[in-house]
Formats: sequence, structure tokens, C-alpha cells
Amino acid sequence: MPPSMLVPDLLPQRANIHHMIRSGLEEDIGRGDCTSNIFIPSDAHTICTMVTRHRCTLAGISIAAEIFAHHDSSLQIEILAQDAHSYDAGTSLVRISGNARSILGAERTALNIVSYLSGIATHTQRCVQLLAGTGVTLLDSRKTLPLYRHLAKYAVRCGGARNHRLCLDDGVMIKDNHIAIAGGIREALLRARTHVPALTKIEVECDHLDQVREALDAGADVIMLDNMSLMDVRAAVEWVQKRVPLEVSGGIRYETLRDYATTGVDFISMGALTHSVIAVDIGLDWTGSI
Amino acid sequence: MPPSMLVPDLLPQRANIHHMIRSGLEEDIGRGDCTSNIFIPSDAHTICTMVTRHRCTLAGISIAAEIFAHHDSSLQIEILAQDAHSYDAGTSLVRISGNARSILGAERTALNIVSYLSGIATHTQRCVQLLAGTGVTLLDSRKTLPLYRHLAKYAVRCGGARNHRLCLDDGVMIKDNHIAIAGGIREALLRARTHVPALTKIEVECDHLDQVREALDAGADVIMLDNMSLMDVRAAVEWVQKRVPLEVSGGIRYETLRDYATTGVDFISMGALTHSVIAVDIGLDWTGSI
Amino acid sequence: MPPSMLVPDLLPQRANIHHMIRSGLEEDIGRGDCTSNIFIPSDAHTICTMVTRHRCTLAGISIAAEIFAHHDSSLQIEILAQDAHSYDAGTSLVRISGNARSILGAERTALNIVSYLSGIATHTQRCVQLLAGTGVTLLDSRKTLPLYRHLAKYAVRCGGARNHRLCLDDGVMIKDNHIAIAGGIREALLRARTHVPALTKIEVECDHLDQVREALDAGADVIMLDNMSLMDVRAAVEWVQKRVPLEVSGGIRYETLRDYATTGVDFISMGALTHSVIAVDIGLDWTGSI
Amino acid sequence: MPPSMLVPDLLPQRANIHHMIRSGLEEDIGRGDCTSNIFIPSDAHTICTMVTRHRCTLAGISIAAEIFAHHDSSLQIEILAQDAHSYDAGTSLVRISGNARSILGAERTALNIVSYLSGIATHTQRCVQLLAGTGVTLLDSRKTLPLYRHLAKYAVRCGGARNHRLCLDDGVMIKDNHIAIAGGIREALLRARTHVPALTKIEVECDHLDQVREALDAGADVIMLDNMSLMDVRAAVEWVQKRVPLEVSGGIRYETLRDYATTGVDFISMGALTHSVIAVDIGLDWTGSI
Amino acid sequence: MPPSMLVPDLLPQRANIHHMIRSGLEEDIGRGDCTSNIFIPSDAHTICTMVTRHRCTLAGISIAAEIFAHHDSSLQIEILAQDAHSYDAGTSLVRISGNARSILGAERTALNIVSYLSGIATHTQRCVQLLAGTGVTLLDSRKTLPLYRHLAKYAVRCGGARNHRLCLDDGVMIKDNHIAIAGGIREALLRARTHVPALTKIEVECDHLDQVREALDAGADVIMLDNMSLMDVRAAVEWVQKRVPLEVSGGIRYETLRDYATTGVDFISMGALTHSVIAVDIGLDWTGSI
Amino acid sequence: MPPSMLVPDLLPQRANIHHMIRSGLEEDIGRGDCTSNIFIPSDAHTICTMVTRHRCTLAGISIAAEIFAHHDSSLQIEILAQDAHSYDAGTSLVRISGNARSILGAERTALNIVSYLSGIATHTQRCVQLLAGTGVTLLDSRKTLPLYRHLAKYAVRCGGARNHRLCLDDGVMIKDNHIAIAGGIREALLRARTHVPALTKIEVECDHLDQVREALDAGADVIMLDNMSLMDVRAAVEWVQKRVPLEVSGGIRYETLRDYATTGVDFISMGALTHSVIAVDIGLDWTGSI
Repeated sequence: MPPSMLVPDLLPQRANIHHMIRSGLEEDIGRGDCTSNIFIPSDAHTICTMVTRHRCTLAGISIAAEIFAHHDSSLQIEILAQDAHSYDAGTSLVRISGNARSILGAERTALNIVSYLSGIATHTQRCVQLLAGTGVTLLDSRKTLPLYRHLAKYAVRCGGARNHRLCLDDGVMIKDNHIAIAGGIREALLRARTHVPALTKIEVECDHLDQVREALDAGADVIMLDNMSLMDVRAAVEWVQKRVPLEVSGGIRYETLRDYATTGVDFISMGALTHSVIAVDIGLDWTGSI
Repeated sequence: MPPSMLVPDLLPQRANIHHMIRSGLEEDIGRGDCTSNIFIPSDAHTICTMVTRHRCTLAGISIAAEIFAHHDSSLQIEILAQDAHSYDAGTSLVRISGNARSILGAERTALNIVSYLSGIATHTQRCVQLLAGTGVTLLDSRKTLPLYRHLAKYAVRCGGARNHRLCLDDGVMIKDNHIAIAGGIREALLRARTHVPALTKIEVECDHLDQVREALDAGADVIMLDNMSLMDVRAAVEWVQKRVPLEVSGGIRYETLRDYATTGVDFISMGALTHSVIAVDIGLDWTGSI
Repeated sequence: MPPSMLVPDLLPQRANIHHMIRSGLEEDIGRGDCTSNIFIPSDAHTICTMVTRHRCTLAGISIAAEIFAHHDSSLQIEILAQDAHSYDAGTSLVRISGNARSILGAERTALNIVSYLSGIATHTQRCVQLLAGTGVTLLDSRKTLPLYRHLAKYAVRCGGARNHRLCLDDGVMIKDNHIAIAGGIREALLRARTHVPALTKIEVECDHLDQVREALDAGADVIMLDNMSLMDVRAAVEWVQKRVPLEVSGGIRYETLRDYATTGVDFISMGALTHSVIAVDIGLDWTGSI
Repeated sequence: MPPSMLVPDLLPQRANIHHMIRSGLEEDIGRGDCTSNIFIPSDAHTICTMVTRHRCTLAGISIAAEIFAHHDSSLQIEILAQDAHSYDAGTSLVRISGNARSILGAERTALNIVSYLSGIATHTQRCVQLLAGTGVTLLDSRKTLPLYRHLAKYAVRCGGARNHRLCLDDGVMIKDNHIAIAGGIREALLRARTHVPALTKIEVECDHLDQVREALDAGADVIMLDNMSLMDVRAAVEWVQKRVPLEVSGGIRYETLRDYATTGVDFISMGALTHSVIAVDIGLDWTGSI
Repeated sequence: MPPSMLVPDLLPQRANIHHMIRSGLEEDIGRGDCTSNIFIPSDAHTICTMVTRHRCTLAGISIAAEIFAHHDSSLQIEILAQDAHSYDAGTSLVRISGNARSILGAERTALNIVSYLSGIATHTQRCVQLLAGTGVTLLDSRKTLPLYRHLAKYAVRCGGARNHRLCLDDGVMIKDNHIAIAGGIREALLRARTHVPALTKIEVECDHLDQVREALDAGADVIMLDNMSLMDVRAAVEWVQKRVPLEVSGGIRYETLRDYATTGVDFISMGALTHSVIAVDIGLDWTGSI
Repeated sequence: MPPSMLVPDLLPQRANIHHMIRSGLEEDIGRGDCTSNIFIPSDAHTICTMVTRHRCTLAGISIAAEIFAHHDSSLQIEILAQDAHSYDAGTSLVRISGNARSILGAERTALNIVSYLSGIATHTQRCVQLLAGTGVTLLDSRKTLPLYRHLAKYAVRCGGARNHRLCLDDGVMIKDNHIAIAGGIREALLRARTHVPALTKIEVECDHLDQVREALDAGADVIMLDNMSLMDVRAAVEWVQKRVPLEVSGGIRYETLRDYATTGVDFISMGALTHSVIAVDIGLDWTGSI
């Protein structure tokens, strides 16, 4: 395997991403691009440039590049922009030169994925900017498309937010059901502490202010304020007095984000960052003749 | 393998969908749901219902059901709604009963996919309704997320539109480059006809009205009007006089759809149906205690 | 992955062909070539040449070469002949030099596949020559060995014939059963036209002359004359008068091919091209000492 | 996995055969059988029977049956004939009833494989009958299509012959090159005996009568007479006097088989049993209406 | 897939364990058990019992059972003992009845794995008993054989110890190198806290008593005393006064375990639990005739 | 694929070993080495050396090297020692230089496997030395961990012993059950000789001296003395007088090995060589700063 272009923190997902690249190309090319096979000479070369048509925060440019490289390892690929940076409309992102049929065969698959991931990063970045000066850290959720968990959460990081947890084995989340089974918040925390590895923290999800006080007293590591009113969130912040981090969660969108951010909480998590994504319009311009 | 719940026209994608289900569960569950393992007794049973929180056109309900079945084949699953139908907020879609840990483990993965696919179907259906009475058929494009090509295009069909082509081996699409290489539209059509299998049609993409006339004369099977103004589209419709189907394409969104639909063209294709998707809010209600 | 030696129109099958190469080597080598391991020094080098023992039309030479390259990427491989060309007995096809154990390990697998595919191409070419001057195009069928569909149809193309359809998703084939269900040829064609993508043609299989007339009137794109007598085929040709392409099909072999070819039909399809294959005798000569 | 229908001695190849079944169905069905999907109601049921059109010795009937079962596990499949038995034209081999689309989808793949394997068994059986009374055992070779090694050798056994060796790790075959490297037949046998596991025999390939004598004296376990004239074979038989088994090999076909068989050798191996196969015509008759 | 016999906390590893079972059977059976195929009638049935020949703590009994079930799903399997329990020599662990060839084919693979895992559990249990009354928790390490990480750590839990961390993504371990790069323990802890998810703790590895004090002051979540003398460990325990958990690590074996346990530390981790394993002698007794 | 570092006689296992390397790295690294990602600059380079802490016979050094190469193909790897050789404590085995994060990520997986395989080779070598001068060949058994069959048997060869058989398809082993079914040793040998390929030998397992005589007379190729007393083994040796090789088997360990070796038998097989393995302590020293 040639040295991967993947950004370092996606390397452990290398096998999954390579599966995605291979299968993505297969489902778009099918049994062959009959149009190119008829018209484009098999040895024709060309140069083209991937360009963003709108201002965006970039995510996934190295994966787009790897799609071309995987399809034809003889293509020359020059990455001109960096994930997690914002670019104006018209900026060139990647320059690809080489066999024309190869470039045409990989074009659509590469554009589809970088448009999607940059869509996540761009909207995340907009939300992060809205939080400027509030001290709040924006978090994502587990609401990602199957097979896109690690890429979507990477795009969220490119947009300037942090991940909440990657999957169900990261940290304990104590909810209503668990508290009922354990017989109370104190009992639930005690039971969790006995079972989890020494290096894992425990978060308690609270629906009412009473629960917040109980969770604080029982020693929760993080407290989630679930679907609480702004007034209740403010009350919780006042009670807790920074003794434990508070996370606001539940149906928050761009429009309501700022209001919650000014309450003094530590974290706001937002499922819409990954479940509803407006793709960035990124295209391929043919610089050279075929 | 137990008889698949997959809708018949997705059966040839069975292996890909099963890979998605397996990998989707793996990436969400990781090394185990430590919270459930601590609190939920391993033999606890419960009943829950998947409910849509908004009015939607459904797509992917059998895949969501298969995610639960794959995770634990002893779960009882009753599908209460049908893909391609529209449902009001509050409608129950699937009822699942059985091992509580199993249901919790598969919940997020199942919801993530049905929310996404129903998002595609719901927006498609809105667009199709806008076309009511115009005689226009709405088409999709190849702008789908890698690994979601067949599911996204299935969701488009659930929403009432038709697919344009599944991938690059379906039909010939003659564009500018090809015409230049062949030395004219007539020459390009001739060359394509010599090479493709007898059962394949040929579409010519036209940027100007002159090309439309040339393509019509040379015997194109379908003519695409690419990024043309409304005025030019109307002129093309008049010239062609239904002798060959006309397709309008290029950056059309919900807002501009109706205007193009009234020109008298046969097809309108719209990339946004699949590249920018607002998930439907679908959740799981716990009917029974754990 | 090193740049593939595969001919361009097999590239989309790259993953399947690589699986075949890997598994083919595994099933021949098993847990190791114990004879070579005992006698051939692990660093012995040699040169050898793949030679055809009979006149043949070549198919699969690049795949045979890839088998050597896959087994040991340090082998020097020089391809001396081209698929789809005919060669006299004694012609050198590939020269391989390098590690002697590696060449011996891959020899049998490489020879087995190129002998088989060239067997298809050679017989196809003989049939095509028989059709010289008749204007008939020879087609193949779906009667190929499982896992060899794309290679067998590629060998048919090397032999100078064209493929009929690659698989069941290519074009609609209306048969007796379908006509009965639909309530007539006209009704069947109408129903098919409503359902298939715009770029797909429809073929009607006819057993009697009456059906040919009906299919012609109803607008079939291609008409198959299935197991008809020479007299009926001639009558059909006369009626149709080139208004739609006619295909003759059903148990035709080399001996009866010419008779059908002189009737004036457009296509003759022949299952025997791929279902009954006499391998070409191709061997490996040891040019250098080990 | 449901209990496999595979004959017991193919069970260790279960994974490979299942891969072949899955991939074979995929390459024939592609993205779906569009004709059936249009015309055959998704709940239509039918009954059909697999019938041989010519007299044949059967091989692979359980694999053909598994193809149907794999495609739709709800099909009812009744196997009516047995591998390694000979049947007259018109004999029913398998009866399948159930979903009509499922039967149509698996039909071609199932027929293609059973026709091929029965082609091997039928020709092998013809050769075995020719050897009747001679005391000679017919053997096959390693000239099998990649991915078909175990199935082809199974079909040879169904035809009444025995396998020579399955692959390169079965037994030592000392040839010219090895003798030259070792410095003589005696030295080569000595070296091999030191290296191979205690339970493995050693065969020596001889081109001249002198070598036969030398190999006999040096204690070879089996002696191969490679491409020798009938006269030389007879001389070898006389010298050896049954002290070690003799195998005749090299370009023997049906026409020359009997002559070699009457020389008194023990084994004749014949590559044509597996490298050039005339498929048996086996078809599917529709007993019931759809 | 039939409901898995796997113990609940190994379910997320289901795919890996099934791969191990399939490949383990393949590598032991190869191209078939030629001895059984010759002597054991293909329909012979028998009953046999898996029995431990020595006193042991059991681990992996359900995986051993699944190996039989995977090889032949018609076998009757009754599990008579439970993982994490200790049994005297002679105890029956599983009773298997059914096809004799199937039982013989899976026997060695099943015994090999349960003997190994029970070897880990048995030695772990011995160590845990040695710690009785000391309040120390025994931990394992990452010194496990590739592909056996999750099974080996499961066996450790069966033996009564706890896992330290499953792999490199579980918790932060700050060592010498990291402290040097960061410019001090305080700086290293600060940097780690900024980067890791909110729910992750941080452990600091200390080689000297000075570092322990520094790590305690800087707020480490856990402190590892690496290769310290008993005297230094006792000093660390006194300084820390239970304000943070202390872990002793480095080359500790059964013989030195008790001495470290009496110092008052919280955790002792021991690589030998998984890197050097004496298999328990577990065999299969043939209760019934074949 | 770059030319493999694998020793030649493991090449046919290349695919399995690469699977082990990939999965081994995945299970140790998980979703990423969070500690290195925080502290080690992504472009930091270092040099380190793999060193044995105890005297050992080496096995698996090229596989350990491939683990580093697989994880990061840009690492410079210099192998300084050879499998099957013995080295004193402190000897450098491999030198690796390059990206520091990459070396840290592969370190544990590489050490775990080379420590285990060298543990097998080291103990085997000790046993082989004990046999010096006795003329006995030490053999292994099928008691290897699933997925480690070929590596464990390779390590046994590195230690100077020979393999008995790789798996169930290598040679026939006639036991009590088989003799009972066949109706006697003579009948069993006759039946086996009719069925197995010409190049396979047959071993008979004897529990009593009477059976040895019977097996000798009936022409067994090898005779196993199963769990016999030293006195009986000596008696068997005397009777057999080297006319057929004798193998002693059954619960033999290092302590009892020498006694059996002096009886004059040919082979002693010992399951403990592979089922109970004390890992060699091999570590990684950081030569350069990070």
C-alpha cells in the first residue's frame, strides 16, 4: 500500500475509508464508463482543478485526492488547500493531471464526498462563530449516517467543534431508565463507578432541576441538561457554580444556539451538525484539453 | 440467511446493505454499550415503537427493521407503515419487542438511516407535488454519497420521482468534449451507435439552441438542455415538438422548479434531491418498562 | 497497488480479477510447492517464454502476466503479443525472468486461464470468419461459467464478435410468459416502456411469424427469432424489411451458422461460444537454466 | 447457516463454493432483472423442473440446488438425481417450486455450472468405459480453470476416474531440472526423502527408458513415463514388473487412450478431462403457470 | 445467523470471533479429514463429552461450543459448565451428539481454544486468590497475542481480575517522553486535559518518588508506580494517602505478587497473565460408539 | 503489494499473515493512540532497536518487521538477526527509524508476536538439545492456537524440530475406532490403501504391543506408540528392528523426554511445544530522542 494521504487522526480508519473509496467508485462506474470508453482515447492526458463554487470550510480534501489516486495510481495529484481552513468561492483545492479517462471515472465520487463533508464543516464553523466570546464548546452527537461516523465527526472537528463521544463504549451516560433501575441517582453513580475501567468518566442526564442538584451531590463527572428551558438552564448554571461541567442538549439549531450559549453552560451539543447537511458546491474545471 | 425483509427491488444490493448494517452497528456500538451493560439486566425485555415526529414520506423502513433483526434475531419486529407512503407526525412506523439491551444497541443506527432516507423521499415528494399537472417527470442525478447510491435512488423512487441513470454504464451521455473529439454531433452519435450494445440509448447534452437542432437531426434518443435560460428552454420545446424527449438540468432547486416545469419539457433532473438532505425527525418511544 | 496491466475495458472488474488471481494461485500452490522448495535454490533465477503450440486468437495475455506479477512483484515480465490478434503455432507470447521458484509457482495458474480464454477467442474468430461478407453480427449469450462472465465476454470480443447483454439488468427481454401476463405483445411493450429508464431498449422474443408482425407494429426495438426454421427466418426478414433489427437465436453451432447468416438477419447469437470451450495448448518454455 | 446441501467431500470447500454462488448470482443479475420486475408479480409462485436434454453423467446437482436456495431460502427444492450416476435425455434432475422471480433470477447461474461439471463427468465416464477390463486407473491433472480446481476434480471423481494430486503441496514430483540440480536421480530421491514429512511419497518423471531403470533402483514410489512412445511404455512395463506403479502422461486424448491402456501400465493421466469441456445441455422446464 | 451462543459482553466481537472459528477450522481440516472420510460412515452418529483433566477456572466454553455448531449446525450441543467458575478434574463441560465426522472435524480446534483461554483464567484466579484480603485489584496489560486481545482479556475477567485498558484509545498514559516534550508533569497534564474528550481520565507513569508528588499535585487521575522497589511503593502509598489511585506495574509474577499487594496500593498489573499461558488439559471422551 | 519480507516457506500463508497483521494493529490501536496524538509531533522522527532481554532462539523476526512496515511503509527497517538462530540477552534484533508515532503505534503488536513465536522456538531448541546424540527426531502436534497453526509450526522448525502433519488432510492416521469399524488392522490398512491418493502414507496408532506386530505385518508406513510405558516402547523397538519408523506420543514433557529418547525410537511428538508457551522478553529500546 502506498503511503496514505489520509490526515493523521483518520489513519486508524484507513481500512474503512479504503473500503468506502473502492465501493464508491464501483457503484458509480459500474461495468465501465461507456461514454468515455467510446470517445476519450485510452492514452489521452489532461489537467483539471477542483474548485469550490461557494465560500466554505473544507473537510475531506485528502480523501477526495485518494479517490483519484486509488482509481489510477499514475495520476499526479497536488493538494492546494487544507482541511479545517475556510476558502472563498473560486478557490482551487486540488490539481489533478494524467489519464483523462481515469480522472473522469473518479470525478463524481470524489466530488460527492468532499461536498458532503465540507457541508458539515461549513455549517459547524458558522455555529462556532456564533458562539464566539461565550466560552461555550460546541459538541456533536451520534446522529451520523451509518458508515460515516468517523468522517462526519472528523468534519465536525474541521469546523471547529469537538466530538461528544465516538460511540457507545466511550463513557457512561446515565438516563431516566438507568436511575429507575438503580433506585436513584446516587445508587446509579455508585454502581457505574464499580464497573467501569478506572479511566472512564460518568455523565448524568437530567430533565429537572432537582436531578441536577442530586447529580452534583452524588459526584457526577458531567451533567447534561436535557431539553430544559432557558430559565431552567440559567438556574442550573447558578446552582452548579462551575463545580462540574454542564452540557445543554436537545433539538438546538442555529437559530436558538446563541440564546443557550449566553447562559454560562460549558457545552452545547447539536445533532443537526451531522444529520442534516447542505452540500457545498464543489466542481471540477478542465484546465487542459483532453 | 433468514428471508430478507428488503423490498424486492433492493434485493440485488443485499450484500452491500448487509455490509452497511453490520458496519453501521459496529461503528456505533464499538467495544460494547457500557451503560446498558451496567444497568440493563441481560434478560430484560421491553416494547418500543418507532414514531415519526413530523409529517414525512417514508423510505427505508425495512432496512431500519433489518438493523434490529441483524443485531438480535430473536427480536419481534412488526412493520406498521410502508415506504413511499406519507404519514402524519405521531404515526407509529415499527413496533419492536424483545431483549432491552439489543433494542438499545441498534436504536441509533436504525434511526439514523431511516431519518436520512425519509428526508430524501419527503423532499422529493414535495417537489413532485409541485409538478402536478405539468406532465413533467422529475429525475435525480449521480450526486449521491458514496455507498448510498442505491439507497438514495430508492428513496427518490419512494418520493415519486424516477432515476436518471444508476451509474456510468447506463446509457451514453455525449458532452462538449466528446463532440469536439468526434468532430461534431452527427459524428459523435454515429460513433456511439457503432460501439454500444443494441439495447442502449444515447443522450446528447446541449448548451445552445443550435446544438439542439443538430442533435435532433442526427437522431439523438434524448436531448439534455444544460443550464439554459427559461426562454431558450421554451424555444427548444417548440422546435423539437415532442419528436424526442427533452431533459432540463443544471442547478434547479425547489424554488425554480415550477417555472421550468411549465415550459413543456419531459424531464427535469435535480441533484439537490440527494446531495442536500434534511433528516426527518424519527424517534423511538418506550411503550413498555424495561 | 501497482498500475494494473489489465486491458482498459476490464478495469472495472479489477477487484474480481484480482480475487480470481489470488484464489487461483492459492488453490494450485496450497501450503507450498514442496518439490521446488527442496530442489530449486531460493535465489535461483531463470528466463522462460510462454509459447502457443497451435495457431490461435489470443485472449487474456495481460491477466496471465498479472498472475506472475501478483505472485512475485520482482519478476520481469515482457508481453510480446496482443489480445484479439491471431498467432501461429510457436509464437512467443510473454517472456518472464526472475526468481525460478516464483515462476514455477505461478506457471500452471497462468497457463490454465490464458488457454481457456484463447480457446473462446479462437473459436469465436473461426465463426466470425465464416460470416464474412454476410453483414451479420455474431453475438454471445449469458451461458458463461460463474465467475467468468466478464472474462468470457471479453474473450468473445477478442474473437471479433459482440456481446448481447452482460446481465439481466441490461435491456428488457419480453418472452412468452411476459406476453401472457400482460395480455398481448402491444400491452407488454407499453408496460415495459412505462417502467424502464429512458435510455433502455426492449427486445421481444418471437416463436412464430405472427408474433414478429405484432412486435414490429407495436414498436419493439429489437426482435428475436427464437428457434425458427430457416424458411421462417427468411419470411421474417422479408416482412420486416430492415425496419427493426432481427436476431436469430437457439442452438446454433458452427455447422449451421452459415445457413442462418445468409438469410439477411442482423444478429446471430450463439451460446456455444462460451459454454463449450476447447483450450488452446499454450506452454512455458525454459529459455535459461535455473 | 442452514445445513449445507453440499456432498460431504466438498464440505471443506464450503466457503469457496459459497463465494462462487454469491458472485455468480451477482454477475448474472447485476442491478436487478428488470424484465421480471416489470412483468412477474412479486408474489407469483410457480413450479419448474431441471431436465437433461442429453444422456449424461451428473456432477454438481447439489451445487445447482444451493444456488436456488441461496438466492431465496423460501424456495422448495427436491433433488431427484444423484451425482456420479448416468441419466438418459429427458430425466428430471431437480424440482423447484416457489417465488417465480426468485427461480428466474437463479436459473441461468444454476444451469451454467451443472452443465459444465456434468460435461466433465460425462466425458470422463466415456473414457473410463473405454478402459474397462484393462486394469488401468484414469487420473486427471492440474489443468483446471482458476477457482474451479476442487469442483472440476470432484466432477472427475463423479465420472469414475481418480485425482492425481490436488495441488503442489501433495507429494513430490521430481523432473529433469531437479535431477540436474541434485546431480542424479539417486541423489534427488535422497534429498527429497530427507526433507518431506514422513507420510509423503515421491514420484519421478522419466523421459527415457534409462531413467526408468535408475528411478526403480533408487526407490522411487511412483514412476511417470512422460510422452513416451507405446513401444517404450511397453518396455518400461516389462522392466518394472509391477515393483512400482507406472503412470503414463502427456497429450493423451480419447482417441489414443485405449492403445496406452493395453500396455499394462497402472495409471494414465489426461489433462483434457478438465481443460476442454463440452457442456451438457441441461434446461429448466416450467411445469406450472406463473 | 442463528442466535449466537456468545456470552453477552463478547457480542460486539462477534464478527472477529466468527472469523477465528471459520479460519481455525479451515487450517485444521485443510482439504478434508481423509481418515474420517475413509472409515467413518457419512451418517454415523455418536455422543461425546468435553472433560477437564485438571482442576481449572473455565473460560471460552461457549466459543468451543460455537465451533462445533458452526462446523455442523445439526449437532446437538449442551453446555454443562459456566465460564468464570472453577471445576475439578473430571468434570464434564459440554456434551455433543450428532454426526460423527462433524464432531471429529471440529474437535481439535474447539479443544485448542478452550484449553488456552482456561489456562489464562486458571492462572489469573490463582493470583487473585493470593491477593485475598489485601484490597488490591489485579489488572492485565496489552501483552496479548494478535487476534486474541478481546478473548484474552475476557479470560482475565473470568479469572476474577479486571482489564487495565483494552487498547491505545482508552485513556491517556503520560510517560517520560511525553513529560519531556511537554516540559514537565504539570504542563503535560494541562495539555492532555485540553485535548481529550470530557469523559476520559489521565494516568501518569512515575519512575521516582519525586514524580509521584508532582503528579499528585498536578491532578493526575491515576498514578502508575513503574518498576519501583517495595520501599518506594510503600513511601508513595504513605504520601498519597488514597487521594488518587496508585497502580504498581513492571515485571511482577506470581512469586512477587503478594509482597507488592501488602503495600496498600490499589492496582497491580501483570503482563504474564496473558503473555505466558500454560494450557489446561481438556479432552473429548467418546461416550457412545460411532 | 511491496515484495514481502516473509521467509520463503511462509509465503503461501501471506494472505493469512497479512490479515493477522492488519487485525492485530487494529485491535491494539483502536480508534487511535490518543496519548501519542497529543504529545508526539506528527512529524517527529526517532530510532529504536528491538532487543531480546533473555537468551532465546528467534522466530518471527520478519513478521515483526512487517508489522512496522505495514503500519507505515515509510519506516526504515533493518533486520539484524535471523530466525532459527540463538542469541544472548541484549542482542539487537531489528533497528527501526522513522516517524515516531508510527513506531509507537506498531510496537506492542510486533513485540507480542515475536515474543510468543520465539518462546516456542526457544523451548523447542532446549528439547532438541536434550535429544543430541540419540538419533531421535522431535515432532510437534496439531495442538496450536486457532489462526496460529502455520506460524506455530514454523516456530517449531526454527527451534530445530520437524512438523508431524500440518492438518487433517496430510496422511492417514488409523486409530482404535477405525480399526474396529474396518474389522482389524489388516482390513483397515487395505481399505485406506484403496482410497487415498497414490502419494500418501498411512500411520497406525497402537496402544498395545500386539497391535504393533499386527501393524508391522500388515504393512503400515509408520507406527505410533501411544501412551506406552518405557518398557513397552523398548520391546516395540526390538521387534520392529527399524523395518518401519516408530513414533512415541502422549503427554511427554521436557522432564521425561530424554528417557523416551534413549529407547531407540525414530520420532517423539510433543504437544507442549505449541500449547503451553512462555514468551521470551523482547523489548524496544529508544536509541534516539523523539
